Amino acid sequence: MKVVVLVGGVGGARFLVGLKALLPGAEHEITAVVNTGDDVWMHGLRICPDLDTCMYTLGGGIDTERGWGRSGESWTVKEELAAYGADPDWFGLGDRDTATHLIRTRMLRAGYPLSAVTEALCDRWQPGVRLLPMSDDRVETHVVVEDADGAEKAIHFQEWWVRHKAQLPARSFASIGAEQATAGPGVVDAITSADAVLLAPSNPVVSVGTILNVPGVRDALRKTEAGVVGLSPIVGGKPLRGMADACLDAIGVETSAEAVGRHYGSRQCSDSGILDGWLVQTGDRADVPGVAVRAVPLLMSSVDATAEMARIALDLAGVGVD
Amino acid sequence: MKVVVLVGGVGGARFLVGLKALLPGAEHEITAVVNTGDDVWMHGLRICPDLDTCMYTLGGGIDTERGWGRSGESWTVKEELAAYGADPDWFGLGDRDTATHLIRTRMLRAGYPLSAVTEALCDRWQPGVRLLPMSDDRVETHVVVEDADGAEKAIHFQEWWVRHKAQLPARSFASIGAEQATAGPGVVDAITSADAVLLAPSNPVVSVGTILNVPGVRDALRKTEAGVVGLSPIVGGKPLRGMADACLDAIGVETSAEAVGRHYGSRQCSDSGILDGWLVQTGDRADVPGVAVRAVPLLMSSVDATAEMARIALDLAGVGVD
Repeated sequence: MKVVVLVGGVGGARFLVGLKALLPGAEHEITAVVNTGDDVWMHGLRICPDLDTCMYTLGGGIDTERGWGRSGESWTVKEELAAYGADPDWFGLGDRDTATHLIRTRMLRAGYPLSAVTEALCDRWQPGVRLLPMSDDRVETHVVVEDADGAEKAIHFQEWWVRHKAQLPARSFASIGAEQATAGPGVVDAITSADAVLLAPSNPVVSVGTILNVPGVRDALRKTEAGVVGLSPIVGGKPLRGMADACLDAIGVETSAEAVGRHYGSRQCSDSGILDGWLVQTGDRADVPGVAVRAVPLLMSSVDATAEMARIALDLAGVGVD
Repeated sequence: MKVVVLVGGVGGARFLVGLKALLPGAEHEITAVVNTGDDVWMHGLRICPDLDTCMYTLGGGIDTERGWGRSGESWTVKEELAAYGADPDWFGLGDRDTATHLIRTRMLRAGYPLSAVTEALCDRWQPGVRLLPMSDDRVETHVVVEDADGAEKAIHFQEWWVRHKAQLPARSFASIGAEQATAGPGVVDAITSADAVLLAPSNPVVSVGTILNVPGVRDALRKTEAGVVGLSPIVGGKPLRGMADACLDAIGVETSAEAVGRHYGSRQCSDSGILDGWLVQTGDRADVPGVAVRAVPLLMSSVDATAEMARIALDLAGVGVD
């Protein structure tokens, strides 16, 4: 079975672990189309938070408590950079992580596209899932905020998310470079030739939404013969984790499973919708015209629970798993 | 008093500590012209071993036992790079050190010359000595060696020095880029306006010799009204530290204080010589035509001993220190 999943960072990575547990055999091919809108240059290093979170999580190198970065991490490089007064000092640049960024940066500067770099890094981690950057082009999520004088300014997503903890009210998001970007190698083909396409319970605005901004991706989702099923990241009116509510506020979408389902929209009943099915948490209600909604347990409290979510999602997409 | 010293790494840095102890006041200006021929790109980072050794040593950040790198260093980045199978794996890239290289690399890529980068890094370390790269241009020492098939090949100095521990016979050295290089900002002016110029007991081939390869430096040494005095790095027919004998072998110079003194040559009696005075170790003999030779204790066993060496060198250069 060929399954494609659109994912962001922590939540997406955990979902992939469950899906991999559900489909462990070599006869299955799981492809993750990973958001790269959070990618950023820091201290001359190219950092790809979502790709790394997926790679480390699936490869057994993640700090499971934090959900991001390497287990057993140390922070010497970060402390020393701060001792030099180097900006920015608010980003969690671990020593182990730094090695990943050094290799990525060196390869990018040598001319390798991000997709090839990711494949090379995965040689070590063997994630068991094909990790495809949504694009090899630079597409960066910037956040339009108000400065102290009330004037609008755009800051990089990481500055808003990590430094300001999404507490600075966001007026809007911009995917810088998205219009000129093309989908990464294999992305469109993976979606159109899949048996099922899933939207992980990732941030619908700055993770899945950013992937959808890449030209060609939305078209592929609308054209594929596979069923497309999303899992709500909103449970009981609150984000499963992270600060998706602040992102939804900025784009005028209510923080509810129904509103996010409607935001993604129906493939059948709208001109730009992408969903056939929508999973919401048991007890949540969602009426999304043209989309089959099912309420099931959506908390990724264990690999087994997550695998069961994936099983139900695939079932709703029309492909049963024994 | 204005004193200029031509220096390499560990030995040069220790000599500077002694000189600084001898001339502590603000009325003195010590300028070190530092070899950058050992500089190298590793894992996408620009590494300047001699500049960093001087900066860390004078700034109190050096690992005094090793003589290079940071005190309290850890090696996580290096271990992780090795886990990725990244080449080279034989270079001592410490975590603390990595932060220095990150800042340097970022600034260089932003267009700052190495001299400006060095000044910025010294903001933190306050070495108390003006550290001038011999050149802002890329001048790299390569070593011509024999491969397994007997064919000549050139490898970077660091590969020969660190990986092969100078055990691979060197046929010759090449200063790649030296002919097109110009001396770094302030270098020629510092030499020509100095009250005394000293050659630290650094490697006469790949440290001081490389500095002399930079166009303009030798001319400045010959033109300056200051006395020019060298300190022999060869004591009792052996290098004070490091593997200078392997370097001297390659250029056909005997490993002796006399031979190195003659290699530098006399300002008065030769067309290309640079010395007025030459200090050798008590008990060593050196006859260098046209050069005043004095035999004194040359072991840098303490800051006081080194300061005394510096005092005698300055005295021989014609400037007494009370």
